Amino acid sequence: MKIAIIMGSDSDLPVLEPAVRLLTEFQIATEVVVASAHRTPAKVQQFAAGARERGVKAIIAAAGAAAHLPGVIASYTTLPVIGVPVNSTSVGGLDALLSIVQMPSGIPVATMAINGAKNAALFAIHMLAVDNPELEAKLQAYRRQMAEEVESKANTVQQKLNKL
Amino acid sequence: MKIAIIMGSDSDLPVLEPAVRLLTEFQIATEVVVASAHRTPAKVQQFAAGARERGVKAIIAAAGAAAHLPGVIASYTTLPVIGVPVNSTSVGGLDALLSIVQMPSGIPVATMAINGAKNAALFAIHMLAVDNPELEAKLQAYRRQMAEEVESKANTVQQKLNKL
Amino acid sequence: MKIAIIMGSDSDLPVLEPAVRLLTEFQIATEVVVASAHRTPAKVQQFAAGARERGVKAIIAAAGAAAHLPGVIASYTTLPVIGVPVNSTSVGGLDALLSIVQMPSGIPVATMAINGAKNAALFAIHMLAVDNPELEAKLQAYRRQMAEEVESKANTVQQKLNKL
Amino acid sequence: MKIAIIMGSDSDLPVLEPAVRLLTEFQIATEVVVASAHRTPAKVQQFAAGARERGVKAIIAAAGAAAHLPGVIASYTTLPVIGVPVNSTSVGGLDALLSIVQMPSGIPVATMAINGAKNAALFAIHMLAVDNPELEAKLQAYRRQMAEEVESKANTVQQKLNKL
Amino acid sequence: MKIAIIMGSDSDLPVLEPAVRLLTEFQIATEVVVASAHRTPAKVQQFAAGARERGVKAIIAAAGAAAHLPGVIASYTTLPVIGVPVNSTSVGGLDALLSIVQMPSGIPVATMAINGAKNAALFAIHMLAVDNPELEAKLQAYRRQMAEEVESKANTVQQKLNKL
Amino acid sequence: MKIAIIMGSDSDLPVLEPAVRLLTEFQIATEVVVASAHRTPAKVQQFAAGARERGVKAIIAAAGAAAHLPGVIASYTTLPVIGVPVNSTSVGGLDALLSIVQMPSGIPVATMAINGAKNAALFAIHMLAVDNPELEAKLQAYRRQMAEEVESKANTVQQKLNKL
Amino acid sequence: MKIAIIMGSDSDLPVLEPAVRLLTEFQIATEVVVASAHRTPAKVQQFAAGARERGVKAIIAAAGAAAHLPGVIASYTTLPVIGVPVNSTSVGGLDALLSIVQMPSGIPVATMAINGAKNAALFAIHMLAVDNPELEAKLQAYRRQMAEEVESKANTVQQKLNKL
Amino acid sequence: MKIAIIMGSDSDLPVLEPAVRLLTEFQIATEVVVASAHRTPAKVQQFAAGARERGVKAIIAAAGAAAHLPGVIASYTTLPVIGVPVNSTSVGGLDALLSIVQMPSGIPVATMAINGAKNAALFAIHMLAVDNPELEAKLQAYRRQMAEEVESKANTVQQKLNKL
Repeated sequence: MKIAIIMGSDSDLPVLEPAVRLLTEFQIATEVVVASAHRTPAKVQQFAAGARERGVKAIIAAAGAAAHLPGVIASYTTLPVIGVPVNSTSVGGLDALLSIVQMPSGIPVATMAINGAKNAALFAIHMLAVDNPELEAKLQAYRRQMAEEVESKANTVQQKLNKL
Repeated sequence: MKIAIIMGSDSDLPVLEPAVRLLTEFQIATEVVVASAHRTPAKVQQFAAGARERGVKAIIAAAGAAAHLPGVIASYTTLPVIGVPVNSTSVGGLDALLSIVQMPSGIPVATMAINGAKNAALFAIHMLAVDNPELEAKLQAYRRQMAEEVESKANTVQQKLNKL
Repeated sequence: MKIAIIMGSDSDLPVLEPAVRLLTEFQIATEVVVASAHRTPAKVQQFAAGARERGVKAIIAAAGAAAHLPGVIASYTTLPVIGVPVNSTSVGGLDALLSIVQMPSGIPVATMAINGAKNAALFAIHMLAVDNPELEAKLQAYRRQMAEEVESKANTVQQKLNKL
Repeated sequence: MKIAIIMGSDSDLPVLEPAVRLLTEFQIATEVVVASAHRTPAKVQQFAAGARERGVKAIIAAAGAAAHLPGVIASYTTLPVIGVPVNSTSVGGLDALLSIVQMPSGIPVATMAINGAKNAALFAIHMLAVDNPELEAKLQAYRRQMAEEVESKANTVQQKLNKL
Repeated sequence: MKIAIIMGSDSDLPVLEPAVRLLTEFQIATEVVVASAHRTPAKVQQFAAGARERGVKAIIAAAGAAAHLPGVIASYTTLPVIGVPVNSTSVGGLDALLSIVQMPSGIPVATMAINGAKNAALFAIHMLAVDNPELEAKLQAYRRQMAEEVESKANTVQQKLNKL
Repeated sequence: MKIAIIMGSDSDLPVLEPAVRLLTEFQIATEVVVASAHRTPAKVQQFAAGARERGVKAIIAAAGAAAHLPGVIASYTTLPVIGVPVNSTSVGGLDALLSIVQMPSGIPVATMAINGAKNAALFAIHMLAVDNPELEAKLQAYRRQMAEEVESKANTVQQKLNKL
Repeated sequence: MKIAIIMGSDSDLPVLEPAVRLLTEFQIATEVVVASAHRTPAKVQQFAAGARERGVKAIIAAAGAAAHLPGVIASYTTLPVIGVPVNSTSVGGLDALLSIVQMPSGIPVATMAINGAKNAALFAIHMLAVDNPELEAKLQAYRRQMAEEVESKANTVQQKLNKL
Repeated sequence: MKIAIIMGSDSDLPVLEPAVRLLTEFQIATEVVVASAHRTPAKVQQFAAGARERGVKAIIAAAGAAAHLPGVIASYTTLPVIGVPVNSTSVGGLDALLSIVQMPSGIPVATMAINGAKNAALFAIHMLAVDNPELEAKLQAYRRQMAEEVESKANTVQQKLNKL
């Protein structure tokens, strides 16, 4: 059980680090790869075509600008591909979002929010948890923890307001 | 093994019909529901919270305009939620796209292209096929068929060009 | 007579503080709540469904990104809901604006400018003042004060121009 | 108890008719006015400045393109102003939406969806119902009716799917 | 012969200062006013309606966000109104641009680039120069000077490139 | 006293016809030219450079897509240039609007609404009327007529509403 | 001397036909191919990698939505790739434009206007004409012909105006 | 064999410097010019019309805002023109992109990404390499080097991840 994470450049790592951390936190193995759809197409093809055999269950692909990486990977594998548009140009990531989400019929890419790598990891966990009660229990715990954090934030807000 | 499809209004059915057909073609059971995040929030909550118990493996949720349905469903279940932005207003579906894809950290929704319901069904099949060799084989066949259709289109184009 | 203010995260507080201050300045009680449409849906439902009974006259809800909070609250109450899109992503708040303003027919949300929380508070006061001559008089005074501030700014500009 | 509806041109009437009908359905008197912020500014000022005295409780103002009407009206009255951006140009109503919703601090306009006149009327009713139990009961009935319509749509969808 | 410049707030002065300077450089008198279409509508009306009598030949009006000031002024005078959209919100001035440029038929506003106040002043000078040979000669000199500045910039670039 | 109107293609004529009609209605001579900034640059230069000598007082230039015509003309003359963005592509005229309005400092183009040719003619009349009391009187009459048309529309609306 | 034209689907043919016609008119051989970056990636790779050997001098690639085809081809060849964004979704071709033009550093794609296939062919001819005086002479003739067509349109406009 | 680079202002030099460097790295002569389509139209015309005679093989033209420079140059020469939209205003370069890419039929401009000057140079090299095996070999080497840099980045990422 392994999730692959692929990015076009090391400059995307800060965006993807929360995804790696979250998967690690859920004790899910990761395979992190740097490859460019345009500069190293052969490496991308090899990575994608062999992923299922390497035990990969889903691929998270992040890219900015004319973000072709997720779609190109999806064309080489039937594993679920989760795309993360990266905000790396002057148009706020809208270029990457449209380049990833507007995939034509036949080759789907599950698109996350701009820079939403953490949710990409979480979505992969949701997929893995469908028939995995242990992971599902962890997800439930994670949700409770998020709810508790909201309460903690509520307290912070109340304290700040009391000082107004 | 069942995929749930939920839409906010019967006017979304033409967009979602290809999804129902594709799942049927892959012999995957579907559960089709009409419920509105805003007009019938209780029904939506009940639908989402009980989906796992009903054997649902993933939920496809389609909505237009301020498209809250996929995100609201995702808040009530840990099943994978696939969102389909529907083009139903004067801004070409950009409102629905941003309302679905820009989910905050913690509650992911896998977003498809505007009106991309067929790909939503296909993505659900990809997820189910991860550990299902039989379904994976069908997916491979489906891809070969798509490639053949491209060849058929290539012939059509050649014939049209010959007539120029 | 009380106005409720709800935000999805403590990070929204700087945007909402002017709303709290303005209501306080108008001597209107506030109820400030942190709750997330997606992480704590039950809390949001409880908050919204019980608001009328707690004496709340209107609800100001602020959210960024896929900003579902105002619409979700509006689905649980018939109190007037005022939505404040928060600029919290790389697309300048357009995602939050469209997610809040493009509500489907049946469940309205009164939308303010991006980050326009002060106007949300002011709009709530306008609503309360419809049949409240005392509050209406305060609003009139507030308007006169704004007009005077414009005059004061005009003087500042004149002085700066004289130095050119 | 009267709601005023103002539009810049008779071409906006088809957009606003559902608002008139809904208010009539709720037995709320309406005052419908055609006046242009730019062509008849004196009429607009007179309309707005005298509205409170005429028993108007809220003003619905619809406009397309550089939609100044709602903001101009709001500058002449402290009654709540509800703005409806009309889709009347080649940019899908985005011009009207931004012209109405991005009001500067001090003069709020409660903005509805593009062409969302019905919700403008409904929001006015929500405001009136805050301290009016009878109207609130009607709103609750209206919501139940909407929920029933969703069920009816669900049946339609089921019947169509059965024929696939 | 006088050009009026009006802005909604002193915060717009840095954007408008180049306009004041250019007009002064061309020895054209200016009348600089701070008034808000929404907070001081009476002052705006008075300013606009009396401008022709005060010897004003054109009005430059700058505003950000829901930028109604130029259009409102144009509704009160037949003097040419030149609008300057100010970039003052999170959407990069697109709100102000559309609010100013998309004026309905009948009340034109000559719109400049976002923050393009210098060009607004220059356009006013072009208008004044139509039948004023002396001013036209100054404009011709100004154009020659701009061409010379381009040459000077060309030299700067050449020197920088020589150092590469 | 003559206003020149230039368009890039005969396909722009339907957009510009109301401008020709309005100027004729105001008894102002027009010079209508078809020339393309890109296909006939020499003709455009000749047209623009000689306009002042031909008695032209202002130039209305309409163009769609990468709409360079108004800016190119402005580079060859110091006459006021009024630009009309034409909606001629799939992006609703936003390309033409930005190509015309975002002129760099030094060469202003007075931009009208997308397809706003009538207002371009009207703005030219406003310019001519600055020191022309007779024309100014006609403009005042035109405004009164517009106000009367609003009243007529108001009657139409009232009659339609009475039939509801 | 051959120009290759590749499209993702036969539905793109109407957009590309003018390109085929223009190249034929200039007596330049064409190679027209239908292949999908996502459905037939192997065919695309083979097409692109072998193009130079087949005598292809430039590749015109058209695609809509998440338009990856031009970029993917550019990753497999050092021949010049000219991209044509096709307007095939609800966002007016902006998705295809950004997916093609925003290519990352290292793999350029020369992008044309949305649906601008004719210009793609023309640009290919411009490239071929750089060191080909005969083709350059044809281009000059083509430009003269375009200028004459503008004159012909000017006559049409004059005749229509005379009838007003 | 020479590539011309033209920019409207010295402020565009930082964007264009990578283009100059890359061409130098490939030992291709450059001609760098500063000229403004609007402020020095005669210089632009002279530059463009004479470029072929000066041995220029392609022209790279960069401009921001209402970016007319590439299109204006293309109207004066049949040499291939490569346009670089510069991000120089508050709308993130979208104005320049649309002003350059949306060229009408007949006068093509090969458009690169916003601020994509390096790719403009690279595309010029691709054009020159079509029939130049030596340059083609250099391009192949450049691509291998880019692929190696991706590997080097992959190592960097691995090292950073190991430290997590």
